[in-house]
Amino acid sequence: MNLLPKGGTADYVVTCVWAEKAVKEAVLFGGVHEAATGKASKFAKLPGAGEIKYSANPVYVHLTTNNTIYGTQWNSEPAVPGGVPLIADTSSDMYSRPIDISKYGLIYAGAQKNLGPSGVVLVIIRDDLVERGPKNLPTMLQYRTFAAEKSLYNTPPAFGIYVMGEVFKWIVAEGGLRGMAERNEEKAKVLYDFLDQSAMFKAQVDLGSRSLMNVCFRTASEELDSKFVSEASKKGYEGLKGHRSAGGIRASIYNA
Amino acid sequence: MNLLPKGGTADYVVTCVWAEKAVKEAVLFGGVHEAATGKASKFAKLPGAGEIKYSANPVYVHLTTNNTIYGTQWNSEPAVPGGVPLIADTSSDMYSRPIDISKYGLIYAGAQKNLGPSGVVLVIIRDDLVERGPKNLPTMLQYRTFAAEKSLYNTPPAFGIYVMGEVFKWIVAEGGLRGMAERNEEKAKVLYDFLDQSAMFKAQVDLGSRSLMNVCFRTASEELDSKFVSEASKKGYEGLKGHRSAGGIRASIYNA
Repeated sequence: MNLLPKGGTADYVVTCVWAEKAVKEAVLFGGVHEAATGKASKFAKLPGAGEIKYSANPVYVHLTTNNTIYGTQWNSEPAVPGGVPLIADTSSDMYSRPIDISKYGLIYAGAQKNLGPSGVVLVIIRDDLVERGPKNLPTMLQYRTFAAEKSLYNTPPAFGIYVMGEVFKWIVAEGGLRGMAERNEEKAKVLYDFLDQSAMFKAQVDLGSRSLMNVCFRTASEELDSKFVSEASKKGYEGLKGHRSAGGIRASIYNA
Repeated sequence: MNLLPKGGTADYVVTCVWAEKAVKEAVLFGGVHEAATGKASKFAKLPGAGEIKYSANPVYVHLTTNNTIYGTQWNSEPAVPGGVPLIADTSSDMYSRPIDISKYGLIYAGAQKNLGPSGVVLVIIRDDLVERGPKNLPTMLQYRTFAAEKSLYNTPPAFGIYVMGEVFKWIVAEGGLRGMAERNEEKAKVLYDFLDQSAMFKAQVDLGSRSLMNVCFRTASEELDSKFVSEASKKGYEGLKGHRSAGGIRASIYNA
């Protein structure tokens, strides 16, 4: 709404359901080119460098950094045409690791995975992109309103922001984003190492595309998946059922 | 965005700064007719029945039920042309008293006055108005999304909703909306009765327009207003300074 003008084209790297949802909204405003889509492989892997085909003159490239449902995650940003802003939905891996902020034009992240309670969105946006938005949008839908008023144009969700502040202090105390990355790598390795040697369980995602936030795996049958989830629940491991649109088993291992 | 089509006209009863802000957004989408405006009297009173001039065929009439800055409040809804939906911003007096819901097409209220923590909006909307909204709006900006998904299309602000539930239980335990109205009338009467007999303080709002939520008053000089606010603060009465755009003194006496 702020960045895709009528007549312009934005490029979307479609690696998951969340990226598909982003496309669905973008087409209301301008042209959308799917630079890559993992739909054929059911989003089990991320596109390689040669598989991303950008359009001639995109106004931005949109990326979803982590895919909660199928358990993929970019471990570094794909190359983007020179001068084209990279826009990323980082909702499910924000502050799980350091980010090279200079590579991004706009980052947006719902708070509820790694940052704090639901109801707050963290946005980091380049000054020139703030100014690019049309001025005839509703006041609350313009990034410039939040930039100019330091997120205080409206009464902000004070409790959520306060808790995020407490979480950020905890992150700093635990070694900052580098510390988070080390913990997350270590946690995920325990699971993936086990899965890769298991005769019963199999990780769903190809090496190189695996998420450190959401580890998706299966047994040989849906019945056994269900039995595992149910037995695990009795032992105190909750929420291991895969997302309803993907099935299987999923361990979500966010910063917390 | 949902209810004012291009080429249509909506009527706004402009009784305060919040109503002016609503007009500022509405003109982005269609025609706006100001059916009344209190700007000349600096919003010190609400328009009488004869002072509201509706347009020929408004798609809706918009009302702001309570005015936090100047301390006015409708004690009953103004008459609206037959069949025209009444839309009300009830942010600052929602659940302070019973509402005849059958008179309204749409009510919206930010939570942070009487309902719970900031970051949640309560909406009550008639089914036919839900369906009136254009289907090419972004998903999150269509009322039909929230109606169809029972406010669970996105991850909702769970903490705020939980606290609102606790507040609603408290309201029920305290006699419901009728009980709230009695308490609020009693509280406001203490202040207005004192102001009306005081030689030093004067209520700013005409009888008949006075808010039970925000009681605005003044002394004969700004210096004395400031001295009063400062002395009151020393005695433990906080937040008595009038809104920066109105000056004077303001006692906000919400449900809490």
